[in-house]
Amino acid sequence: MATLGDIGVSAAINILSALIFLLAFAILRLQPLNDRVYFPKWYLKGLRNDPLQSGGFVNKVVNLDWRAYIRFLNWVPDALTMPELELIDHAGLDSAVYLRIYLLGLKIFVPITLLAFSVLVPVNWTNSTLAKSGFTYSNIDKLSISNLPVGSQRFWAHIIMAYASTVWTCYALQKEYATVAAMRLQFLASEKRRPDQFTVLVRNVPPDTDESVSECVENFFMVNHTDHYITNQVVYNANKLAKLVKEKNSKQNWLDYYHLKYSRDQSKRPMMKTHFLGLCGNKVDAINYQTAEVERLAKEIAEERERVKNDPKSIMPAAFVSFKTRWGAAVCAQTQQSRNPTLWLTDWAPEPRDVYWKNLAIPYVYLTIRRLIIGVAFFFLTFFFMIPITFVQTLASIEGIRKRVPFLKVIIDIPFIKSFIQGFLPGIALKIFLIVLPTILMLMSKFEGWESISALERRSASKYYIFNFVNVFLGSIIAGAAFDQLNTFIHQSANEIPKTIGVAIPIKATFFITYIMVDGWAGIAGEILRLKPLIIFHLKNFFLVKTERDREKAMDPGSIDFNTGEPQIQLYFLLGLAYTVVTPFLLPFILVFFGLAYLVFRHQIINVYNQKYESGAAFWPDVHGRIIFALVFSQLSLLGLLSTKRAAQSAPFLIALPVLTISFHFFCKGRYEPAFTRYPLQEARRKDSLERAKESNLNLKDYLQNAYLHPVFKGDDEDDDEELESNSGVLVPTKRNQSRGNTPAPSRMSANSSNSFS
Amino acid sequence: MATLGDIGVSAAINILSALIFLLAFAILRLQPLNDRVYFPKWYLKGLRNDPLQSGGFVNKVVNLDWRAYIRFLNWVPDALTMPELELIDHAGLDSAVYLRIYLLGLKIFVPITLLAFSVLVPVNWTNSTLAKSGFTYSNIDKLSISNLPVGSQRFWAHIIMAYASTVWTCYALQKEYATVAAMRLQFLASEKRRPDQFTVLVRNVPPDTDESVSECVENFFMVNHTDHYITNQVVYNANKLAKLVKEKNSKQNWLDYYHLKYSRDQSKRPMMKTHFLGLCGNKVDAINYQTAEVERLAKEIAEERERVKNDPKSIMPAAFVSFKTRWGAAVCAQTQQSRNPTLWLTDWAPEPRDVYWKNLAIPYVYLTIRRLIIGVAFFFLTFFFMIPITFVQTLASIEGIRKRVPFLKVIIDIPFIKSFIQGFLPGIALKIFLIVLPTILMLMSKFEGWESISALERRSASKYYIFNFVNVFLGSIIAGAAFDQLNTFIHQSANEIPKTIGVAIPIKATFFITYIMVDGWAGIAGEILRLKPLIIFHLKNFFLVKTERDREKAMDPGSIDFNTGEPQIQLYFLLGLAYTVVTPFLLPFILVFFGLAYLVFRHQIINVYNQKYESGAAFWPDVHGRIIFALVFSQLSLLGLLSTKRAAQSAPFLIALPVLTISFHFFCKGRYEPAFTRYPLQEARRKDSLERAKESNLNLKDYLQNAYLHPVFKGDDEDDDEELESNSGVLVPTKRNQSRGNTPAPSRMSANSSNSFS
Repeated sequence: MATLGDIGVSAAINILSALIFLLAFAILRLQPLNDRVYFPKWYLKGLRNDPLQSGGFVNKVVNLDWRAYIRFLNWVPDALTMPELELIDHAGLDSAVYLRIYLLGLKIFVPITLLAFSVLVPVNWTNSTLAKSGFTYSNIDKLSISNLPVGSQRFWAHIIMAYASTVWTCYALQKEYATVAAMRLQFLASEKRRPDQFTVLVRNVPPDTDESVSECVENFFMVNHTDHYITNQVVYNANKLAKLVKEKNSKQNWLDYYHLKYSRDQSKRPMMKTHFLGLCGNKVDAINYQTAEVERLAKEIAEERERVKNDPKSIMPAAFVSFKTRWGAAVCAQTQQSRNPTLWLTDWAPEPRDVYWKNLAIPYVYLTIRRLIIGVAFFFLTFFFMIPITFVQTLASIEGIRKRVPFLKVIIDIPFIKSFIQGFLPGIALKIFLIVLPTILMLMSKFEGWESISALERRSASKYYIFNFVNVFLGSIIAGAAFDQLNTFIHQSANEIPKTIGVAIPIKATFFITYIMVDGWAGIAGEILRLKPLIIFHLKNFFLVKTERDREKAMDPGSIDFNTGEPQIQLYFLLGLAYTVVTPFLLPFILVFFGLAYLVFRHQIINVYNQKYESGAAFWPDVHGRIIFALVFSQLSLLGLLSTKRAAQSAPFLIALPVLTISFHFFCKGRYEPAFTRYPLQEARRKDSLERAKESNLNLKDYLQNAYLHPVFKGDDEDDDEELESNSGVLVPTKRNQSRGNTPAPSRMSANSSNSFS
Repeated sequence: MATLGDIGVSAAINILSALIFLLAFAILRLQPLNDRVYFPKWYLKGLRNDPLQSGGFVNKVVNLDWRAYIRFLNWVPDALTMPELELIDHAGLDSAVYLRIYLLGLKIFVPITLLAFSVLVPVNWTNSTLAKSGFTYSNIDKLSISNLPVGSQRFWAHIIMAYASTVWTCYALQKEYATVAAMRLQFLASEKRRPDQFTVLVRNVPPDTDESVSECVENFFMVNHTDHYITNQVVYNANKLAKLVKEKNSKQNWLDYYHLKYSRDQSKRPMMKTHFLGLCGNKVDAINYQTAEVERLAKEIAEERERVKNDPKSIMPAAFVSFKTRWGAAVCAQTQQSRNPTLWLTDWAPEPRDVYWKNLAIPYVYLTIRRLIIGVAFFFLTFFFMIPITFVQTLASIEGIRKRVPFLKVIIDIPFIKSFIQGFLPGIALKIFLIVLPTILMLMSKFEGWESISALERRSASKYYIFNFVNVFLGSIIAGAAFDQLNTFIHQSANEIPKTIGVAIPIKATFFITYIMVDGWAGIAGEILRLKPLIIFHLKNFFLVKTERDREKAMDPGSIDFNTGEPQIQLYFLLGLAYTVVTPFLLPFILVFFGLAYLVFRHQIINVYNQKYESGAAFWPDVHGRIIFALVFSQLSLLGLLSTKRAAQSAPFLIALPVLTISFHFFCKGRYEPAFTRYPLQEARRKDSLERAKESNLNLKDYLQNAYLHPVFKGDDEDDDEELESNSGVLVPTKRNQSRGNTPAPSRMSANSSNSFS
């Protein structure tokens, strides 16, 4: 068991590495060469110009202004001073609300920490159970609940503390839910006109032999929403077209690369092999070959586009239906259209950028089946993923290799390689799995059939949270793989499970403190350094960039990865709530995490990240629900722990807590969740009236005509750019479009399409 | 353990008593004197006249026509021949669909019984495990799964049977859900114009200091539903008024009674005492006293009515808002109105008869709290009701009485009284509790704040089902009170619980067979005899009836008690599904129950019951959900049983069953449930268009003006009757109104109000 000294050493190391990251960042960000890595958001918004264009060569690469280095920490106040309203305007509501999760962590845990340290720490410390017990123990354990004698009356302090922290957490959660809901409604109300305000996504249009999908939709809505319907846009199955466009873009990139190579060294024409990633096949002249390929693809794309537009089979039974008023759209989105509730399914259209086109054509019955399959698959993934990995690890062990590939025996007996295999290979299989896990979960969510990218990310986040909870949290508390735990739990009685967990939690406190420092402190500090984008940008810059546009393309602003980021924060909420009463010594470490992460992400959101879509904080109900889950879990584990301490008379007092917490959750769900799923008619009507008063002769039909065109129909031709800008300018609520000239549309389009079709 | 012979004796007794009931019914129903007990529905519809009015005195009382007795069983074909469409027209959709539950039981269990008898019975019979074991066993056990040796390969037959019965049950359920949903939509579409089609119940109207509730509602809906709104009716808090009206009716009844008494024996004026149910107080002239009382109450009622109408405080923050079209109402009912989702809550208005007026004014936050309180209270009621009853039983025992009331010692030592106390009193406490249980559950549902009588009955049925499941089903399988079971289950591991239950199920087969015969066979046959209404009717007829109207009032047609009847049927589904694989010998007994009950209730619905409201089969999702629950429960208990038989390799095959069943449930929920909770716009629009084509100059506003008036404002004054009839005639879809002259409105009104305010 780690002592205070051990923790101190670990803290020192992690603080040091965090400081090194922060220092490196503070210096690197001042170098003009890295400007596009650390401030891409401003480039995209057109509010920052390349420092490369002015000054001498040295100035272009290294910042020689010593004054800048004195103020090297001034990014901190910069990150904090932007007011929230400006932040929403600058980066969107999603990002602003995402930051509030960290802030919520601070709001919840600062008072709890103060209270716990002023009450529980003295109560725990002034016992001598551990000293008498003769076991080895550390000073940290003296601060924890383990130091109380069995049956002590002092457990009342812990019970009262459990109540206090629950009440405070619920209060903070309720306030926050109310604020976020109000922010969302405010955001929707203050937004400019956007096509998704008028548009409803209709799925499962019933097939009709006489009419095309578009006519069928038109007839249906003309009858059933007579006064409100204006137009509809059918959804094309353009998956093949999108693939071709992607292929052409890639070939075009290669062509550019070879052109560049040739222009640098005109002595020899670049050559390439045609097959399998350029590793085999005939050697041909690269420029000629790629030019031919690009031309061929351009022709194919043109043909495919014609085919898609004219072939009725490529029209999917889904459509974006637009209405004259927001009121009409709100009505249509919230009501059932036909007798058969699985036909004519209507729902708010996501933002055009947010649509996941591939999933628009899945019929209702398949959705049930797909969700069942993924549910079962996810269960096995969570509980049994260790089995294939253990298998790979056996294969990759010395014995395994010796047995299966005997001719390698000579090589693996070399001591260096032997130690490499023994020390490194087994771990690498697990590491690779954990790296690709978010991608696997995202693929699962895609298979489930959600129709917007934001919904996909929310679903992936839920899955990732469950995986983390089972494998990271429970896996650390109860040693052993997940299926061992599952086996344990199945064979334990319902009142033994909280005991098992509750007893294990205080023992693991030091482990989690170390975990928080490595993952939370150093990890977050590493995030701000952006090492990977930094290296990739410089590599691209060195090898590929030849024009301003290439440099824009080489920038990778990235975005908040909600599907991995939010579950990570939730793990800290879980740790904080679970240890509040048990080992309050852990709380300050969590506070440091929330504070540092808030700072870092605020900086990143202001300067770096470029969100791919705006969902209007639609994720908040998930965030809220998971904190409630963590709260209930912590209450049950405390109940389990106390029941082993012969503080059994306290059980009736504690059993009320989860009941109250869960009904608090239902109250919040009823009171605030509709703000995230429905759109009040009063708001819609108010906005309609305002707009009608301001612009009475607006031609809405033209405005909505092409808003929901599949991106491949828009983004491919370079000469479409100008038209596109004026068209898509309205889609994005930030200032970004005003300077689109700086950021050519295709980069966005291809980013979009590569996202949509990956 | 009961042998086949024991079962045979028990069956004989029960069949005999059932036959006696049926025979008694067949004879009693032919007597003219009982006509109003056995055919009240036809009287209410005005399609049957009193046989008392013709013929001699003997003919009036006893049916002397011997031919009628020959055909004494002809009620059976009569009950069966009415086609379903006519039945819906005659008794409403609720009743017709209620009958389909019994029919569904037959549909599910007839094929399953045939299959089980042709496959499982031979498989079980041709073993000799029990014969070898040396335990005592009966022939029934030889037919059950207990007769198979541990680890036998024959268990595959049972696994396949479990699959077959699940697939068949799901298929039947899905067909039935589709049919009922279609029937409901058909019913709604074919109905005549009714106020609830145009009306939405708005609750939680925010308080406004400047405007009255009516003005506030008017303004809000004029703005937000400009094109559709026509009128609104506020809800008065008329609880006090209703109480006064009820009191006056009671005094009026007494007055009538004394008048009658005096007219029979004019020698002395009837006297009465004024206090405490006429047991103490001054003796006064009864007629004068009651006349004065009635006059006083009439005056008070008039005053109270004025006060309610004029005092703004007696207006509740709720209103019935009516729209010009069904489309407008459908839109309003399905959408969220304001930013705060707990204000302006809109929902379909129930039928005027179905409104539970008392609950219309509960604010949202109290609903959460009330539901939490009832949730906790119901938990304690279900698991701990035995504690107070045991306490009462101890009090009521010989020893208890001796200890607490020593002076009664002399009396209770009399042998007869002693044996009475010992044999009867302890049971009576439990019996009384079980008799008042449905009332307790109904009170709980009322406290939860549901706003229609149909919803109250549905909620009570859910509670009653859970209570029955825990205390009747599990309580019989695992001996001991519910809190002992709870204790057992909490201390058992998750995979032990199905084993405990699974092993106990085959042992209890004979007990449940007896239970089915007593409760299901004889009980249902007793239902048709209507002994209680028969006696009460004749008592009333003898003592009270003096006019034709009194005789109408003395009739008590009753209605289907959904809140107790449906949970009873569900217990049979549960038994049937749980024993399908384990002891198929039980199935024929269930088939007899379903067949007999179908026959009896079809007869009662056609001839007797008079439904108080029509909810359009809104209860079907509950019925479906409970059968699914029974199915999953039976699968899990089979899994538990087989795992003790060392048929463990079968577990993976069986675990798939509940997963599939549950996802089937979600599929059905998504596919069919919206038909019961929402109203498709397409249907609304179609019906609107039809109506507009037929009656273009309909004054809807007048039509809707007073549809949702609190019944006390309508039903009190006798001279209002005529107006009322023409007004309320449209409310009821059956033919009943055409002959209202026969059934004066007030009886309905008071029935309504006594229901609403009990």
